[in-house]
Amino acid sequence: MKNYQEIIEEIYHEIKPLTKQGKVADYIPALARVNRDKLGISVSMITGETYCVGDVEEKFSIQSIAKVFSLTLAMAKQNEKIWKRIGREPSGNAFNSLVQLEYEHGIPRNPFVNAGALVVTDILISNLDNAYTDFLDFVHNLCVSADIDYNEEVAQSEKETGFTNAAMVNFLRSHHNIENDVNQVLDVYFHHCSIDMNLKELSRSFLYLTNHGVIPCSNQRILNQSQAKRINALMLTCGTYDEAGDFAYLTGIPAKSGVGGGIAAIIPNKLSVAVWGPALNEKGNSLAGVKALELFTTKTGMSIF
Amino acid sequence: MKNYQEIIEEIYHEIKPLTKQGKVADYIPALARVNRDKLGISVSMITGETYCVGDVEEKFSIQSIAKVFSLTLAMAKQNEKIWKRIGREPSGNAFNSLVQLEYEHGIPRNPFVNAGALVVTDILISNLDNAYTDFLDFVHNLCVSADIDYNEEVAQSEKETGFTNAAMVNFLRSHHNIENDVNQVLDVYFHHCSIDMNLKELSRSFLYLTNHGVIPCSNQRILNQSQAKRINALMLTCGTYDEAGDFAYLTGIPAKSGVGGGIAAIIPNKLSVAVWGPALNEKGNSLAGVKALELFTTKTGMSIF
Amino acid sequence: MKNYQEIIEEIYHEIKPLTKQGKVADYIPALARVNRDKLGISVSMITGETYCVGDVEEKFSIQSIAKVFSLTLAMAKQNEKIWKRIGREPSGNAFNSLVQLEYEHGIPRNPFVNAGALVVTDILISNLDNAYTDFLDFVHNLCVSADIDYNEEVAQSEKETGFTNAAMVNFLRSHHNIENDVNQVLDVYFHHCSIDMNLKELSRSFLYLTNHGVIPCSNQRILNQSQAKRINALMLTCGTYDEAGDFAYLTGIPAKSGVGGGIAAIIPNKLSVAVWGPALNEKGNSLAGVKALELFTTKTGMSIF
Amino acid sequence: MKNYQEIIEEIYHEIKPLTKQGKVADYIPALARVNRDKLGISVSMITGETYCVGDVEEKFSIQSIAKVFSLTLAMAKQNEKIWKRIGREPSGNAFNSLVQLEYEHGIPRNPFVNAGALVVTDILISNLDNAYTDFLDFVHNLCVSADIDYNEEVAQSEKETGFTNAAMVNFLRSHHNIENDVNQVLDVYFHHCSIDMNLKELSRSFLYLTNHGVIPCSNQRILNQSQAKRINALMLTCGTYDEAGDFAYLTGIPAKSGVGGGIAAIIPNKLSVAVWGPALNEKGNSLAGVKALELFTTKTGMSIF
Repeated sequence: MKNYQEIIEEIYHEIKPLTKQGKVADYIPALARVNRDKLGISVSMITGETYCVGDVEEKFSIQSIAKVFSLTLAMAKQNEKIWKRIGREPSGNAFNSLVQLEYEHGIPRNPFVNAGALVVTDILISNLDNAYTDFLDFVHNLCVSADIDYNEEVAQSEKETGFTNAAMVNFLRSHHNIENDVNQVLDVYFHHCSIDMNLKELSRSFLYLTNHGVIPCSNQRILNQSQAKRINALMLTCGTYDEAGDFAYLTGIPAKSGVGGGIAAIIPNKLSVAVWGPALNEKGNSLAGVKALELFTTKTGMSIF
Repeated sequence: MKNYQEIIEEIYHEIKPLTKQGKVADYIPALARVNRDKLGISVSMITGETYCVGDVEEKFSIQSIAKVFSLTLAMAKQNEKIWKRIGREPSGNAFNSLVQLEYEHGIPRNPFVNAGALVVTDILISNLDNAYTDFLDFVHNLCVSADIDYNEEVAQSEKETGFTNAAMVNFLRSHHNIENDVNQVLDVYFHHCSIDMNLKELSRSFLYLTNHGVIPCSNQRILNQSQAKRINALMLTCGTYDEAGDFAYLTGIPAKSGVGGGIAAIIPNKLSVAVWGPALNEKGNSLAGVKALELFTTKTGMSIF
Repeated sequence: MKNYQEIIEEIYHEIKPLTKQGKVADYIPALARVNRDKLGISVSMITGETYCVGDVEEKFSIQSIAKVFSLTLAMAKQNEKIWKRIGREPSGNAFNSLVQLEYEHGIPRNPFVNAGALVVTDILISNLDNAYTDFLDFVHNLCVSADIDYNEEVAQSEKETGFTNAAMVNFLRSHHNIENDVNQVLDVYFHHCSIDMNLKELSRSFLYLTNHGVIPCSNQRILNQSQAKRINALMLTCGTYDEAGDFAYLTGIPAKSGVGGGIAAIIPNKLSVAVWGPALNEKGNSLAGVKALELFTTKTGMSIF
Repeated sequence: MKNYQEIIEEIYHEIKPLTKQGKVADYIPALARVNRDKLGISVSMITGETYCVGDVEEKFSIQSIAKVFSLTLAMAKQNEKIWKRIGREPSGNAFNSLVQLEYEHGIPRNPFVNAGALVVTDILISNLDNAYTDFLDFVHNLCVSADIDYNEEVAQSEKETGFTNAAMVNFLRSHHNIENDVNQVLDVYFHHCSIDMNLKELSRSFLYLTNHGVIPCSNQRILNQSQAKRINALMLTCGTYDEAGDFAYLTGIPAKSGVGGGIAAIIPNKLSVAVWGPALNEKGNSLAGVKALELFTTKTGMSIF
């Protein structure tokens, strides 16, 4: 077998043409002006090695990938109690659908659809001293880096245009599934999603999920083994919006994507891998990113199945 | 045939026991504390006579009945242009459903579901100098009475608990079907719905719809003949929430109800009739009111069919 | 005012260009080969006069208009009992939707959506000696003509291609809302819809609904007054598929349409009017027919509102 | 760690009380009369050892577990071509819902909902010489046993009561997603689901999925490695009806259940495990079976994550 560096370079060249296809998210200016040619892959081994190719030093908006960190922090604080307010089933609908929420009386299907992440945010507000700084500290810890921050322009733009999320949080509140002020929940939620990272930081930040809940380099336990497995299961069944079934079929690994074009995945006990390609497919996942992960599992022969 | 006074007194006694059934709206304190025993019927003839029985002098919250006045004012200002933003079909769903709105991409089914009334409110804000005072003046005009006002306690309570409407207006905004600030739209909407009237005022205020758009006593034209007929058609097909089909089947006349327990109906060219009974059936219409109107059409032999 | 003959001739010329627009139903050969240029209007007065223009002698497939006759016969036999198995609400969905049926646990929204008509058919099978010949005799009676028959080619074609209706009747059966054999129900249903009539017969056949349940020329009572009014109410709220609200708004009269391009309407106490124009709008109603009725109510000043 | 035999005996005793809860499927007599006290667990190692406890020799109806075999045979015959007619996404709805099918225009969400399995059956009919005997031969091969047969009583009962499936196949046909005669498709489908097996046979029959597509004892290749992984991914995301997300969360392994109370799961590269407990939870999965697999993964520390 080729080594990891050779493999990701090969993949980089194979997926490069895909950056010309698809559509960069354009609902806020900060995302719309991202160069669609950006492309990078970063691999972090549980044993400490890293392999990179392409635009791995440039910060980008991780968007919904932050939902994994929110969920992790909520489970660390509240464990299984959170499931009284959120389901664990794939949604079978677009990530921002109100329909399912209405049929299921205000219980979001899972923590990775927007409605579910809003409830997770509400849980964090109720359980953290400061939902802004505590969350950021937590992410610093996962990334083993303090050079990560909210992007206030992104957070502000999201807020100004986020009418669907505002609809959702009000609807959840009408079903008594939001405890805090709706505007506060939205503001915290938009901040969490506004975090900027580069690919090296992103792949590193997922290593605790590869390693049964423990950050390998610091040996710090974030979750217990069972919790870590469960978040991986949720990423596999719900991590890539309404494409999760297809994604599991094609790649066979747990992953979480964001509309900033990032996607992060893990192979249990081995490694985490993050890809960035801003152009999205029609399901809202990075076109180049999904293909890169499919090629990565094929070329390395890795799969959980 | 008995005369009108005899008929409504007979009906009053027949429906009196229904005030013990059903459920008074309790989502805000001002509605919850209304005495469920209240009951009255008021008939206003196009020719000026009036017939009353029961609690016809006491003010109550007309709630969604105000949607008829908003629609009338919007049609008077914008005529058929409003139908680019609202449908004219019965909803087949609860009055506050987000599901249909999502399937139909932010175009509310009709102006009497909440989403449709929010769009009507938005139209009024864009087309009136002052959406609060101008609307109230308009209602004074219809009632031929200046003794009608917003109930600030009701408006305020609606606002504090109106998360479903807040969800709706944000969702409409996300589909570019709200032009003004969402909080302003909600505030105006809640004010319009908060109007208090008594039954005499209410039945009188509907006479322009009985009389092809002209207020009989003042001879003032509010709508042209075609517009008046069309609002009547909309009341028949959409005026009593998800019970409109049943209501048309049983009574055969156009009507509009509100969760305050009021319901107002018209017989073209003849009369308008308003009933108040605070206890609601499971569709949200006054139990006594629906029955009263069914008996009224049966006993008078009146029907549009 | 012009006389009826002048009015319908004027309308005929105004709507003639519409025969070039829209789409003739083509799901079965017998409908697909109908000439889209066909156009006619027939008016039957309660007092016996008739006014005609265009293709009023040619037979065409009345299709869903037959649902009015089925419902009439079922109400004549079972009166209000039928409403245990069928609703009376507009559907808010396409006429052949399974979605609403599933959400409402096998109770069709109204007797004019296909699912509702299948239940009506099932009721007729259980309550007639022979659901084929008795129904035909009944229609002969309404039309005051024995020269009306099933079109076996149409019935056969419907059966061979009617998979959506087959889905529906099986689904109803799974909810215990069909008593008879599913294939028998389908066969009877397709036969009833296959009836051929010409416009003169069609307008005449609706006169009992104009006349409070009594056929004017024979003085035969078909329904009581209340039943006749109620069928008119149902036609107004549900008679033109998912366009019923718009249709009521624009014409203000009860009507029932079919995909064969026919549409029949009534003005209570006065007349019935039938129009045929095979090309359909996107809701499945005759383009020329809907416009003709809108013009007819405008030019005659007639409306129920 | 305890050995497998000790572990499954321990689990057997822990789950025994669950046989008193839940509800045995009763929609056909052959299922309704099954003794709810039945309980067994069978483990088949890739290396040939087997471990059993409880009712492992008694035949029961495998029902929807057969969908794994149908899908395997369809993929072996047609590979990726089948995905033009079936999706690969979790359903977010009950296994027999028509709603999603209507919204998605006749393309079933995945091959394990009934609609998807009916399309798979249609593919088999078009691609096998004899869809009855060839399928049975294929199952004999997987089980390394010829002592397995259709249960004609079950197949017959399903057919007599299977109106929902009849609705579905007709609906699929109306969307041109069924090529063969609808009654033939239903008959073949009901036969495939009627297969009886005992637990030893069932766990053995899943070993090819554990072993990358090759039956371990005969070394016969059924699927290529990629196909086997993909079927495992589908079982994880869609194998336990609308409970798949919860199941993946709690057990972390691919599995397929049936309303006969059977459930079969695999741990890649190691073993397959089958459990039988006739009483079902409200999602239609064996109550004891789901708990047994959760305990099995906990006690063995096995998981794919």
